[in-house]
Amino acid sequence: MKHISSTKNEIVKQWKKLLTKKGRLQTKRFLVEGEHLVEEAVRAGIIKELIVREDVQVPGSWKKNAADLITIDESVAKVLSETETTQGIFAVCEMKEQTERLERGRYLLLDRLQDPGNVGTMIRTADAAGFDGVIIGHGTVDVYNSKVLRATQGSIFHLPVIMMSLDEAIQDLHELGVFVLGTALRNANPYTEVENLGAIGLIIGNEAQGVAPELLDQCDGRAYIPIRGKAESLNAAVAAGILLYHFAPVD
Amino acid sequence: MKHISSTKNEIVKQWKKLLTKKGRLQTKRFLVEGEHLVEEAVRAGIIKELIVREDVQVPGSWKKNAADLITIDESVAKVLSETETTQGIFAVCEMKEQTERLERGRYLLLDRLQDPGNVGTMIRTADAAGFDGVIIGHGTVDVYNSKVLRATQGSIFHLPVIMMSLDEAIQDLHELGVFVLGTALRNANPYTEVENLGAIGLIIGNEAQGVAPELLDQCDGRAYIPIRGKAESLNAAVAAGILLYHFAPVD
Repeated sequence: MKHISSTKNEIVKQWKKLLTKKGRLQTKRFLVEGEHLVEEAVRAGIIKELIVREDVQVPGSWKKNAADLITIDESVAKVLSETETTQGIFAVCEMKEQTERLERGRYLLLDRLQDPGNVGTMIRTADAAGFDGVIIGHGTVDVYNSKVLRATQGSIFHLPVIMMSLDEAIQDLHELGVFVLGTALRNANPYTEVENLGAIGLIIGNEAQGVAPELLDQCDGRAYIPIRGKAESLNAAVAAGILLYHFAPVD
Repeated sequence: MKHISSTKNEIVKQWKKLLTKKGRLQTKRFLVEGEHLVEEAVRAGIIKELIVREDVQVPGSWKKNAADLITIDESVAKVLSETETTQGIFAVCEMKEQTERLERGRYLLLDRLQDPGNVGTMIRTADAAGFDGVIIGHGTVDVYNSKVLRATQGSIFHLPVIMMSLDEAIQDLHELGVFVLGTALRNANPYTEVENLGAIGLIIGNEAQGVAPELLDQCDGRAYIPIRGKAESLNAAVAAGILLYHFAPVD
């Protein structure tokens, strides 16, 4: 069992690279933090290194499922942590190869979403609502960002999260005969007037600009959520939640 | 026109007290920050002091609507701000006297909600969904907290936000013949099976513990949102959004 006491250790420098999008893309690895997320990553079977502060106890089953167990000093935990008070539990995980092909089903498509908390919450809600996957278009915040991971509450390990161009995704969904619905404020129907047909590609757009016009042009329908009071808009994650549950599988 | 250049000025000390719940309760005033919120407060006609950093221009109509206009140095703006990069626009506002009596209508009741962002987002969503008011039970985070105010996006100035005991609120609603629905995981129906009857008292509970059992006992019905995937739960503000829109007025 390795122990690392210095923040200047070469391994710590490698870990710190995983806090940047560039470092994650180069290594195809990412860092998760906190008991709950690490537990979900263990279950998903993607842990390469389990990293725990020396005073922290973790279940034996976690150790068996990690290729490597490394203990660290508190100073190292502080360097790795992106929370205010760290639990001292981390794991280096491997990104899954994206071999999934889209199948007929329910997908949430994210067009240039910027807020990590929103994106993570949307992935969590898509999981809860029984959707089959989330498609992350170019320009949406990196889903391996620590704030996104935290907000997914582990759902990122439960359902396929697929990075691909939304043009391509819409084309694939159309070939599968799936209805693609864009959210838009103009030339759109109240979402309650759109039937829950089973399979759907639901596109949520950028917090300020909405779905790109060139994507809306490829949609089979457009819907909006009526605002009845004096609020100007809904929080993006709340709006996504309302729509996801409207188009969720019915028991 | 007053100008304040020192963070040690007595007036700044008074303003800083408004950053605490105690200070707000004692003075029945609160501080709002940022162009959008201050604009909404101006419209609501509750601004006592308009406070702007000396380099910031604000519309003349704002100045007319504020009892006092005070310019400040950047150092003072930094002391007052609870954001990372401040716009340098603040206002001291007066809390409205709560004289509203509940009427037959749609109300969201919050039982011991702890997360300021959740509470603010719920107020915003209740406004958007066309609810008539939000009732804040004892033990819910102070709605004049800066994070709550920010998350409401101004909706706190649009619809009645009433601080009262939920026991009393449920009793009042019952006297008005309003159906009171508690959210609960056990002995509950899927929310989609609960009819939208018009008037409703919808109770959302603490993020971890849910609605208190003694309140559930007083409810006319209990509902839950089905979780179909592997997610353990929904974000509280998302859950509230799904329910608020299910029970929203229909055009």
